Amino acid sequence: MTGKPKIVIVGGGFGGIKLAKLFAKEDVDITLVDRHNFHLFQPLLYQVSTAILSTDEIAYPIRTFFRSNKNVEFFMAKAQGVDQVRNVLLTNHGEVPYDYLILAAGATTNFFGMKTVEEHSYGMKTIQEALHIRNHVLHMFERANKQTDPTLRKKMLTFVVVGGGPTGIEEAGAISELIGIQKKEFHNLDFNDVSITLIEATPNVLPMLPPEMREETVRVLRRKGVNVRLSTQVVDYDGEVLKLKGGEEIPTRTVIWAAGVKAVPFIAECGGEVARDGRIIVEENLLVKGAKNVFAIGDCAFFLHGTERPLPTVAPVATQQAVVCVRNVMKLINGQTDLETFHYKDLGAMATIGRGDAVMAKGSMKMSGFFAWCAWMIVHLMRLAGAHTNFTVAIKWTWNLISGTRLGRIITNIKV
Amino acid sequence: MTGKPKIVIVGGGFGGIKLAKLFAKEDVDITLVDRHNFHLFQPLLYQVSTAILSTDEIAYPIRTFFRSNKNVEFFMAKAQGVDQVRNVLLTNHGEVPYDYLILAAGATTNFFGMKTVEEHSYGMKTIQEALHIRNHVLHMFERANKQTDPTLRKKMLTFVVVGGGPTGIEEAGAISELIGIQKKEFHNLDFNDVSITLIEATPNVLPMLPPEMREETVRVLRRKGVNVRLSTQVVDYDGEVLKLKGGEEIPTRTVIWAAGVKAVPFIAECGGEVARDGRIIVEENLLVKGAKNVFAIGDCAFFLHGTERPLPTVAPVATQQAVVCVRNVMKLINGQTDLETFHYKDLGAMATIGRGDAVMAKGSMKMSGFFAWCAWMIVHLMRLAGAHTNFTVAIKWTWNLISGTRLGRIITNIKV
Repeated sequence: MTGKPKIVIVGGGFGGIKLAKLFAKEDVDITLVDRHNFHLFQPLLYQVSTAILSTDEIAYPIRTFFRSNKNVEFFMAKAQGVDQVRNVLLTNHGEVPYDYLILAAGATTNFFGMKTVEEHSYGMKTIQEALHIRNHVLHMFERANKQTDPTLRKKMLTFVVVGGGPTGIEEAGAISELIGIQKKEFHNLDFNDVSITLIEATPNVLPMLPPEMREETVRVLRRKGVNVRLSTQVVDYDGEVLKLKGGEEIPTRTVIWAAGVKAVPFIAECGGEVARDGRIIVEENLLVKGAKNVFAIGDCAFFLHGTERPLPTVAPVATQQAVVCVRNVMKLINGQTDLETFHYKDLGAMATIGRGDAVMAKGSMKMSGFFAWCAWMIVHLMRLAGAHTNFTVAIKWTWNLISGTRLGRIITNIKV
Repeated sequence: MTGKPKIVIVGGGFGGIKLAKLFAKEDVDITLVDRHNFHLFQPLLYQVSTAILSTDEIAYPIRTFFRSNKNVEFFMAKAQGVDQVRNVLLTNHGEVPYDYLILAAGATTNFFGMKTVEEHSYGMKTIQEALHIRNHVLHMFERANKQTDPTLRKKMLTFVVVGGGPTGIEEAGAISELIGIQKKEFHNLDFNDVSITLIEATPNVLPMLPPEMREETVRVLRRKGVNVRLSTQVVDYDGEVLKLKGGEEIPTRTVIWAAGVKAVPFIAECGGEVARDGRIIVEENLLVKGAKNVFAIGDCAFFLHGTERPLPTVAPVATQQAVVCVRNVMKLINGQTDLETFHYKDLGAMATIGRGDAVMAKGSMKMSGFFAWCAWMIVHLMRLAGAHTNFTVAIKWTWNLISGTRLGRIITNIKV
């Protein structure tokens, strides 16, 4: 190691990659720590879970980002805590000393304390979870196909998605299309038994969008055969029966949980104060409250300055914070104390609600339908890492749109 | 079910798919049974194991082949035996009655009774095994990167492939290239510690090719840094040290076993006589010896009529046998007893030995180098199922050739 300042970054998501790319230009040594060796393009995770894209198309090797950055070292390890007295990050593969530490560790699924739901339903935050959903949903069709007990068959073919945010909406829409594709290939299955339900606890889907966009989304989903149920709360799920507040029961083998996120548990072990959803409280300058050389950005940071609510857990917050964070760290390295205050610039919101259909809004600008979908596609393709990936994903989407098939429908981890 | 003859096929490999496609044109009901819901393009499995291709690119949903064939039903189940008295196939999901049964169940890895080797080394016959190899090899680099014990580090970076057939050759060549790519992205790892060894028990690699092609193959592999060891026999492996006949030991965490195949164990439960490598003995007309209505083709069939050795376990044998098998079944259905005798037409052999390099031979025709590689690529692309798959695989190979990167290098199933 050189005598240069040692920067340690936890997390290879949108925030972490941006941080490391910016620090790479400075005269510092950077260690990027992540438990996975890839950056995951989370907004498209629902496409892996519904057999549209391959894992490789939304996961990009972290080292490849830094091929020409000799001062960036990647360390594959699970962060477990921070010792702010000794200035070391604790991991399952040993300690990593730092001069400056930035927490960009992201979020995980929030089951709001419902242990049984957590145990039996499918989260949607990691590539492994997406593959589990894909394998399970496809396997349910295979098992239902020769099932002679009608009650059991229907239970296998009842799919429930919980959560009316972009992930839940996109997942429910993609499953409804997947059902249509399966219909062409199961010659002897009665598709009247197949259903897809979207459950949302509040009266609205997509709270970040204006009311008319929300209504449009519900209308489109219902037209596609998704049973949209608003103001409906889940209270329990044992793997066989989903229980709703009020006593109603839905027999189902498949509950996909996209109803909330919280910071990863590691954040509670960093010596800072955590707020709602386990996020660590940061100052206006992104320093962890009370810390001198530890910053936090993105989904794991609780930033509440000049806004009514903490900043949303979306990629633009993380990448914008990364820019300010790097500038502030460099100020500290250079002995300056006038740290910059972070201000979030809202870029608007968008969600795809099916093949060739999306909704989007930014300020007073609103759009829906095929052109919104084109915009959605362009934005997501532009952000996907790697020229080759962009190209093959674009081909796959086009092929999908034209042929209405999904070649990714392979079951890889089921014991039969 | 209709009153039509019930044909049951076990296995969705090259033979099974061909059988079902041919039977689909006849006035019969077909059930294709496989424990996986996809057809696997096994010749390219080594490319998944070395992060060149995605799983979806060499696996094709079986049902998609038969979208327009209403008389073909797919049943995802693991075949467990045959009751030739009651005419039923036994599976882990119940019995399947048949009028005619065709075994096209394929082969699995042959460890020649060495239990410890089987337990600790990696087979290369299924998509799950290919993913295990990929995850493990990449993970070894990540763990070695921060390993301070030089002995342990070297053990992690010593990769051994056993078997000098096409699979072993291709795997060793692809790993040597993977090492070159890793070298660009591990800024602080000493690559003198990294090695790839190919071990073959006989004095020759690629026995199906003429001597000059074998020598060319060994020469090319050695130039690529593969330590080729002929006439070398493995006797034991405990996960840490590979033991060779004669007492030599190679400390390594990675042994990939491509040294032999045998019929899947299910074949021994079919009521027929099994020969060498667990293959079931068939008559000249492909009927299982002693059976009236049970046929066997491909890797699981022991066909020894008019040749010195049983037919090789390659795709062309299976697909050619499928054609004759269907004609013979139709003859029996139509009350004819003059069954056709199967004659194998050798189409030659080919193997790729690296990026832009291959060897091939058919009769007196021989070719090696870039043009042989182009021929190899065209033959494999033509056989890959699905127009879209062909296209994206072609792009990926071209991209690979130009850029020298492999975007598939993501580790998906390692607990860190």
